[in-house]
Amino acid sequence: MTTTVDMLGARLREVLGEKATTDPDRMGSYTRDQSLLTTAGVPAALVKATSVDDVAATMTVAHELSIPVVTRGAGTGLAGAANALDGCIVLSVAGMNRILDIDAAARTATVEPGVINGDLAEAARAQGLWYVPDPGSRAISSIGGNLATNAGGICCAKYGVTGDHVAALTAVLADGRVIRTGAKTRKNVAGLDLTHLLVGSEGTLAVIVEATMRLRTAPTAATTVVAFFDSAEKAIEAVLAVAAVAEPCQLELMDAVTIDAVNRFTRMGLDESAGAMLLIQCDGRSAVQEAADCAAACTRVGATEVFHTDDPEEGDAFTAARRMALPALEAMGTVLLDDVAVPVPALPRMLERIQDAAERHSVTIGTFGHAADGNLHPTIVFDAGELGAQDRARGAFDDIVHAALELDGTISGEHGIGVLKAPYMSDMIGSVERELMLSVKAAFDPRNILNPGRGI
Amino acid sequence: MTTTVDMLGARLREVLGEKATTDPDRMGSYTRDQSLLTTAGVPAALVKATSVDDVAATMTVAHELSIPVVTRGAGTGLAGAANALDGCIVLSVAGMNRILDIDAAARTATVEPGVINGDLAEAARAQGLWYVPDPGSRAISSIGGNLATNAGGICCAKYGVTGDHVAALTAVLADGRVIRTGAKTRKNVAGLDLTHLLVGSEGTLAVIVEATMRLRTAPTAATTVVAFFDSAEKAIEAVLAVAAVAEPCQLELMDAVTIDAVNRFTRMGLDESAGAMLLIQCDGRSAVQEAADCAAACTRVGATEVFHTDDPEEGDAFTAARRMALPALEAMGTVLLDDVAVPVPALPRMLERIQDAAERHSVTIGTFGHAADGNLHPTIVFDAGELGAQDRARGAFDDIVHAALELDGTISGEHGIGVLKAPYMSDMIGSVERELMLSVKAAFDPRNILNPGRGI
Repeated sequence: MTTTVDMLGARLREVLGEKATTDPDRMGSYTRDQSLLTTAGVPAALVKATSVDDVAATMTVAHELSIPVVTRGAGTGLAGAANALDGCIVLSVAGMNRILDIDAAARTATVEPGVINGDLAEAARAQGLWYVPDPGSRAISSIGGNLATNAGGICCAKYGVTGDHVAALTAVLADGRVIRTGAKTRKNVAGLDLTHLLVGSEGTLAVIVEATMRLRTAPTAATTVVAFFDSAEKAIEAVLAVAAVAEPCQLELMDAVTIDAVNRFTRMGLDESAGAMLLIQCDGRSAVQEAADCAAACTRVGATEVFHTDDPEEGDAFTAARRMALPALEAMGTVLLDDVAVPVPALPRMLERIQDAAERHSVTIGTFGHAADGNLHPTIVFDAGELGAQDRARGAFDDIVHAALELDGTISGEHGIGVLKAPYMSDMIGSVERELMLSVKAAFDPRNILNPGRGI
Repeated sequence: MTTTVDMLGARLREVLGEKATTDPDRMGSYTRDQSLLTTAGVPAALVKATSVDDVAATMTVAHELSIPVVTRGAGTGLAGAANALDGCIVLSVAGMNRILDIDAAARTATVEPGVINGDLAEAARAQGLWYVPDPGSRAISSIGGNLATNAGGICCAKYGVTGDHVAALTAVLADGRVIRTGAKTRKNVAGLDLTHLLVGSEGTLAVIVEATMRLRTAPTAATTVVAFFDSAEKAIEAVLAVAAVAEPCQLELMDAVTIDAVNRFTRMGLDESAGAMLLIQCDGRSAVQEAADCAAACTRVGATEVFHTDDPEEGDAFTAARRMALPALEAMGTVLLDDVAVPVPALPRMLERIQDAAERHSVTIGTFGHAADGNLHPTIVFDAGELGAQDRARGAFDDIVHAALELDGTISGEHGIGVLKAPYMSDMIGSVERELMLSVKAAFDPRNILNPGRGI
């Protein structure tokens, strides 16, 4: 073992100099992402790449020696896909963080993978343009990681996920060769769509080293509607009613547990007697009119209170409250954050099943999420110091994922599979489909060195 | 040879009965799609499938005997991807034409691949919903073919291509096994995105036998702007100006040759002195206001005439005129229809290069297309009876495709590669990328029987 690590270290330093290390003290903060209750191995080496050549050199050595490689960007993943594997090279592309080009006429931005989402959004805004994808982590997560997980966010209700905004990619293959996929043109049907195959592949197929993302013209200020309901069921009735009359850019749900937690955390004064709350925002030229129709739809299905504002600051305050849902629940104890999605009409049943799981396993679960997409984040709160509590949390997590499957949903809407959801993949994907995915992986990575055992 | 065909026919009839034939007289109309100047082989057998089991049985036999299979829907393809190969089985799924389910609450439609696009649109409309993708062929082309080519259309300016509207697929693999890809949920990141890998793969990876497509709420009536310009360059300046202030659902270009042809064909009375014309439509709640801004943008960059109407019938008449572009050019002689796309800012140079090609090869070229997407259809008109004319048309076609490549564009925006564009694939896709695509194909189709030599 020592010999392999020594040889690996020597080979990496030979081609990468000080960018490579095998010193355990320098690798400590690169072994895990932000997922909880996931396993992580002990890496053999760390490479902090700053160029495509660095990535290619790393992959060439890894391929030659058949060493597994775990690629990571900002390390904000929530499923453990960037956790180290025993004996692996951790390949950090966080240092590849240049915005290479913003083409205002073509409305594209070409970036290195370590660029922070919020930094790209800011650079686009400075040119009157808009980088749309807005995962909750946007202030700290990188475009490479957003692409590797096909990150979602709040905007998806109207504007889709990260993969809906990618034009072209440059990636380094397992053997160090470089490929370019996609095109700068809006339409392109030449050959197989490798771009969208790489998106969401969690570092299992290739290492994304450059991305050309599409930008939009910034929309007008949003109009915000906040509506409270006696029950989550009524709130979902409103979601369907809203979807029939408008296309909000946000359509977010918080359940009673989450409302209480956010109130305690932010002193926002939300209605704690409510069973659920919807936060709706409409943008674009008809924002005011659309929002009025959303408010009317909420009232029609029996909202107990509907609040409506064109004031951007007031709207931002509500969005900020919604973004506080996870920190507010985290303040109540240790949390195990789930991420499932079901068809929107199945949301009432999904919410019931989440409450059943909370009762069965004697845990508190606060649920919030992207109601327009049927994408919920049931957040299991427990006392890590209490005997058996972690097992009960796991039991509830398990019940929730199985309920999503039974309701024709998915085991992950936007966080990815990684380590956390790997046990559910055989229930999610049929055996023929899984075999096929693994054959596709083998076509990209014949020695199975790119994040083996993850994502598929 | 005769023995193989006899054995094939016997095996197919054994499992498929009357749905299989080896009678050349019955296969005649199934050997070509609607592409011009493409080669087609002589098939050994034809299967007219009416169920998933029929497709699976056909593939099982084909796999066992290593016989190539060319799948076809309505046969309206424009690149020859559905042309027969010598000795192949032509597998027609045109008879699988049932709309299986329209789920109004979840806003999805599940269909068999032979369903005609326009029939699905009509069925959705009957429930107050909208199936968006609108290729020019929508009255005659099938959803399976639309998916196999990732068909575009006029709506793509705002609503994207066919692949942007697919949720889940069922497909039969080369060896007859059935897979399901994607999910009914709006978001799903479990495993590799096989759905978008199948979209646009031109029958090379699997046979799509069922598709769940997303529907939208129908928009309000559209407002139409028609603007004429001295030159194509000015028109493209207007396209960029329009894109900065609005998001039209149509932004179509016709050049001078096309305007003349349409005028002669339809007696619409378009301004024949113009160098180019834009047809712009805005939909949604702010259609009127957006269209006014589009009109102002056209005027600002120097349109010679701008016409503006909220009357749906008048708007439809202009859209109909635009849809007559190809038939009008076809009325002038034999046509060779091209399909290239470039980044929008490169359109003026692309249009220049098209005129250069017309002059160099002494042919007439009428160009129309989807300006917002940079997707043009230069249509080469020639007299098939004239000695050397076909070669000159081919020469112009060749120049146009190479010009698109030089301008950072693509050899096909929406028609596909098939036979027609296969010679340009090595210039479009790098050798490593092509090798990778072929490895991915081998993962799906190890015996290389699904439309071999096409699409990649």
